[in-house]
Amino acid sequence: MAELLHISEHRDTKRSDAITALARHSLFSNMPEEIFAEFSAAAQLMESEKGQMLFLQDDPSEWFYFVVSGWIKLFRETVDGGEAVLDVLTSGHIFGEAAILDGGIHTLGAAVVEKTTLLRLPATILKNAITKNHTVALGMLASVSRQRRQQTQDIEKLSLQNTSQRIGCFLLRMCKTSDVTSAEFKLPYDKSLIAARLGMQCETFSRALNKLRKETSITVKGSSVGIPDVSELASFSCSNCSQEFPCHDLH
Amino acid sequence: MAELLHISEHRDTKRSDAITALARHSLFSNMPEEIFAEFSAAAQLMESEKGQMLFLQDDPSEWFYFVVSGWIKLFRETVDGGEAVLDVLTSGHIFGEAAILDGGIHTLGAAVVEKTTLLRLPATILKNAITKNHTVALGMLASVSRQRRQQTQDIEKLSLQNTSQRIGCFLLRMCKTSDVTSAEFKLPYDKSLIAARLGMQCETFSRALNKLRKETSITVKGSSVGIPDVSELASFSCSNCSQEFPCHDLH
Repeated sequence: MAELLHISEHRDTKRSDAITALARHSLFSNMPEEIFAEFSAAAQLMESEKGQMLFLQDDPSEWFYFVVSGWIKLFRETVDGGEAVLDVLTSGHIFGEAAILDGGIHTLGAAVVEKTTLLRLPATILKNAITKNHTVALGMLASVSRQRRQQTQDIEKLSLQNTSQRIGCFLLRMCKTSDVTSAEFKLPYDKSLIAARLGMQCETFSRALNKLRKETSITVKGSSVGIPDVSELASFSCSNCSQEFPCHDLH
Repeated sequence: MAELLHISEHRDTKRSDAITALARHSLFSNMPEEIFAEFSAAAQLMESEKGQMLFLQDDPSEWFYFVVSGWIKLFRETVDGGEAVLDVLTSGHIFGEAAILDGGIHTLGAAVVEKTTLLRLPATILKNAITKNHTVALGMLASVSRQRRQQTQDIEKLSLQNTSQRIGCFLLRMCKTSDVTSAEFKLPYDKSLIAARLGMQCETFSRALNKLRKETSITVKGSSVGIPDVSELASFSCSNCSQEFPCHDLH
């Protein structure tokens, strides 16, 4: 009994911490208190295992999600079984919310990349809040605009950067701060998913990474990456981009 | 004097027709009358010549535009002078309006593809209307969502379709109606712009078009296209797509 109580208390604390994190998300941070209370009361904490499908493209939307920890991929599957990975999200991001603007239908699928904790929230509450409350509508507008800006960048990269430059760009974005001169880090998820996120087949990714290793001084051993000279990598990767490094949106 | 009066009357009629077309655009069609009247009073009719730059990426936004007739391309220019074409728009579309959601800065440039008639509208009126009026905010939200959906499709295509399939997809979308079995039409703008819109170099476009001609029964002579068997082209082009032909959004 004491054991069960302990588990339940632990779960309550975890849920309450997740709600605190949710409140900091830009869609919720300016929301009138009484509307946020509706979300907070209805939010369900979920532990999801690697590979779990949360929804598929063309599914009717019932829930949207906030990532507490872990990784989620958003994807579209083709008639022939190919998969385009549109985004890979981690803690602090929401997904599935845009379906309420798309006739209540998900335009992307979502799957768990590795063990992930989520808050699941009813789509109807968001839909009603946007319809009734101007502040919430403006928050949603800002959120969709941010996604549109990111997609514009993705289209630009897919149109103009070669495969090695796209990998270089991905690694530069992992450096996070703009004043770094060298960096060492682990890749955030496995290479096959990075390849898909960058719009490449795995074999293309391997060839392009080898080329990038020859053209610059970066090292990649397993998932460990070393960038001894960030400016060298930037001069290789950013020439086919409309932004110079450090990118405006790095922070 | 009579001549001048005639020109001025002609211009007034043209402006008035353009305002009528503007009122039918989804951003304006549900707008409260008094707000639409502000746009209508401030709208300026513009004739623009091929090649004219309307704004560049990173320019502060003062105006947004409605295409009355002609063609406009939206693009981003890279550090090395490359150009990614994000969209090519014709009559009935607006552009440049999203800058008010991006800190008043254009995230894309806009240039005239061929002689084009535009209505130029002050961005501040739209910004104020969205801030003050819930219906306008919801209209803007729907508009940005549509753009996001289109960009999602573009990213999917760039990630998964090969170059010949992307051209096939472009041609299928020119058929417009979904129940067509064969089609003949002129390309809407020149091949180098189509190549850029599909994220290809001109040489890649030529090679991919030749391959498409060999693999299917389509004919392309100058700007004249013949598709004797739409279903054959669809089975070649749509296998690497998450939608089957006819696409949901064809109408």
